[in-house]
Amino acid sequence: MDAIILSIGDELVLGQTIDTNSAWLSGQLAGVGVSVLAHITVPDDQTAVEQTLRESASRCDFLIVSGGIGPTEDDLTRQALAKVMGVELEENAQWLAELHKFFEARGRAMPAINRIQAMIPKGAEMVFNTAGTAAGIHAVIEGSRVGVQGSGEGSGFRVRGSEKVSYEASSFLNPDLQTLRPSLCHVFITPGVPKEMKAMFTRDILPLVKQAAGGAVILSRTLHTFGLGESAIAEMLGDLMRRDRNPSVGTTVSGGVVSLRLNSRFPSEQQAREELQKTEVACRAALGDLIYGQDEQSLPGVVAGLLLADSTATQFAPAVGTAESCTGGLLAKMLTDIPGSSRYFRQGYVTYSNEAKQDLLNVPAELIAQNGAVSREVAEAMAVGTQTQAGVAYALAITGIAGPDGGTPQKPVGTVWIGFAHPRGCAARVFLFPGDREMIRDRSAKMALTLLRFHLLGKPVPF
Amino acid sequence: MDAIILSIGDELVLGQTIDTNSAWLSGQLAGVGVSVLAHITVPDDQTAVEQTLRESASRCDFLIVSGGIGPTEDDLTRQALAKVMGVELEENAQWLAELHKFFEARGRAMPAINRIQAMIPKGAEMVFNTAGTAAGIHAVIEGSRVGVQGSGEGSGFRVRGSEKVSYEASSFLNPDLQTLRPSLCHVFITPGVPKEMKAMFTRDILPLVKQAAGGAVILSRTLHTFGLGESAIAEMLGDLMRRDRNPSVGTTVSGGVVSLRLNSRFPSEQQAREELQKTEVACRAALGDLIYGQDEQSLPGVVAGLLLADSTATQFAPAVGTAESCTGGLLAKMLTDIPGSSRYFRQGYVTYSNEAKQDLLNVPAELIAQNGAVSREVAEAMAVGTQTQAGVAYALAITGIAGPDGGTPQKPVGTVWIGFAHPRGCAARVFLFPGDREMIRDRSAKMALTLLRFHLLGKPVPF
Repeated sequence: MDAIILSIGDELVLGQTIDTNSAWLSGQLAGVGVSVLAHITVPDDQTAVEQTLRESASRCDFLIVSGGIGPTEDDLTRQALAKVMGVELEENAQWLAELHKFFEARGRAMPAINRIQAMIPKGAEMVFNTAGTAAGIHAVIEGSRVGVQGSGEGSGFRVRGSEKVSYEASSFLNPDLQTLRPSLCHVFITPGVPKEMKAMFTRDILPLVKQAAGGAVILSRTLHTFGLGESAIAEMLGDLMRRDRNPSVGTTVSGGVVSLRLNSRFPSEQQAREELQKTEVACRAALGDLIYGQDEQSLPGVVAGLLLADSTATQFAPAVGTAESCTGGLLAKMLTDIPGSSRYFRQGYVTYSNEAKQDLLNVPAELIAQNGAVSREVAEAMAVGTQTQAGVAYALAITGIAGPDGGTPQKPVGTVWIGFAHPRGCAARVFLFPGDREMIRDRSAKMALTLLRFHLLGKPVPF
Repeated sequence: MDAIILSIGDELVLGQTIDTNSAWLSGQLAGVGVSVLAHITVPDDQTAVEQTLRESASRCDFLIVSGGIGPTEDDLTRQALAKVMGVELEENAQWLAELHKFFEARGRAMPAINRIQAMIPKGAEMVFNTAGTAAGIHAVIEGSRVGVQGSGEGSGFRVRGSEKVSYEASSFLNPDLQTLRPSLCHVFITPGVPKEMKAMFTRDILPLVKQAAGGAVILSRTLHTFGLGESAIAEMLGDLMRRDRNPSVGTTVSGGVVSLRLNSRFPSEQQAREELQKTEVACRAALGDLIYGQDEQSLPGVVAGLLLADSTATQFAPAVGTAESCTGGLLAKMLTDIPGSSRYFRQGYVTYSNEAKQDLLNVPAELIAQNGAVSREVAEAMAVGTQTQAGVAYALAITGIAGPDGGTPQKPVGTVWIGFAHPRGCAARVFLFPGDREMIRDRSAKMALTLLRFHLLGKPVPF
């Protein structure tokens, strides 16, 4: 099964916004065995959108379109789809009711302009948007897969409307038949806002694609690591990463997290599951506790789980406090990303200035004068100060040089000391993180969580 | 003049790499008045590349292709272009000599595999690569601009070869003639590596495009707002957003920030600049201080600038402190996103637990018991406590229900109180933010910055 990903927006073809949706969608589709034939981006121009919809729908099984369904005049994707389908737009009562509810909950009447967001082409289905006001659209259209180009009137397509499509049918699953009869294309239209698009794709579109893709079962698992680079992880995995292996093992990197993506593709679900399991065991054997979690698990979430299960932590309630200089609150923000974090997180100090380190954490002024604010001594003093002041079992402290200024030959930009106080003592480690201010702050906070994680596991840090 | 940008690479359609080349190229082309009709990305598949080259060349004046000219077997772009042109590849003696020099300079013999990088289609020109081993390619091909699709044999194209193309000639500059005669497309093929592509484009391709494009200049500006939704902003802008307006005004939303994109397209740079200026003045008149910044400016950056210029703030050093419950450090993180933030940000408290609010900020336990932690009273007490404890001019306090749990009918998830203490008093406002935990936390922190911003401007909050 083939897909084409179509992104719509002036800001994209003008180069003002980098398209990240297409890469994300490609990864999702690859995960369920759907080949992506092309990414296409066109401006908010109804004629261009129509032409691209026509041509693309005749070449693929799934056409995933994002953008151009906002409430304003430059949003023309729904109109273009209706034109291609040769139908009118009609108001979707269910979504209109949702829109009214949405605005009522905010104590406002729905602006007239938003009404368009409940309009979908006749014969198409509404796709629920859990994160915004634009309903998604799902239409099944027929086009000849081979040789026929959009003629300009959209006449090459017929709407399948509310007819139920049987995914078991050979109509478009049998490649031999594709040259003989019209093929179906599932067109999905989602908002361009990445968050809304991802929520909609994951919740409602992916399951449908998976079902329609039929045949082979693809089961996937993602394992996450933090602390080592992609090439070091690849070396440890060795033959597991061979290109022709099934289940396959690939790596991706995002925000310093190196993730292993396992795809197991077999005729039966049982076999796919068993083989996936074996490969996962092999990956875990190769990497050990470097793997902190899988699939949707996040580093803060895993640390939260360990804290809630930790016998030392449960004697304190809550168990953790933070003191941050260069990260400016990011570590506390990560620890409180998790709902219910009040059960383990008590309080945090953002001691950006030296005065704040002295006033709030009792770090002696002389210690800072002698060693500099970015030093083992100050990191440890910040951790111990937090432990004492907040009355917590575990205290994490971060002091470093996030840049772009403030680096010296001895302490270049990226130098970060992390102090960690626990009931049996205190330690500090220094790291030199690459990248810009944002990266250095992000990696510092994740490394602090990682140090706490290994302590809670009762294991040495393996790097 | 129109351009299409074509990116070639398996890693792109697999979602392993985000395409940044297309956005960069779009910006460059817009700067010389060339409209980008589409971005297209296809895998390293010769048939797909051929088909896309054929179709795209018949639709634009400039086709900028990147990727697929490396030395390995999966690099097939040069072969595809030769096929479309209906010619053979031939060795370019000049580039072969450059390649030998390149490897000699590194004390190595040229690997046989690299010889292919000196092959270009007969009749095409070599484009110098100052940053790598793959020569670029420039071919001028003729195709009928209107109505003719690539037929599969490439017969719709004729090579212009080494004939000099006169850019002054009306042959393809006069739109009236385009339907009557074949049009020319300049095809440029560059490496996919951003550094090599950019060097080649800037040095050799852009001057040629500029010369050929003549005429129109496009100048852009982006204006950012926070606080109102896209539809409310659109209503305030009214006719300024008319589709046929020049300069045009469109809106995009990212992270709650509604941005206006202004594009001004005129024959001369002076006219484009003057008209852009007029439209910007009109947008600012319509939205007033809702616009917090433009282009690369961020909300924290703008607030930082106001703080550094504020006479009250400068009596304190640093001037701002924060107290955060549901945002858990995110507001402090945003305030310290800016390099040099120690000049205005002193310290922050993450008082996630009620005990922390009492211990660190002297919020009376009874106040919390009587009103709940999410209340005007507690928000104000947190702000005043921070102001006193930290000795700052301005204190921002956030307490709310970020969810997914903890909501009640009276205080549903998304209810957030923001307290603000300044030298002349203290105030608090309640907001009901939509979305999930992450969105609610993000909008809360941005709203706190916005309240501080309007105070520093000496203006009432306009919503």
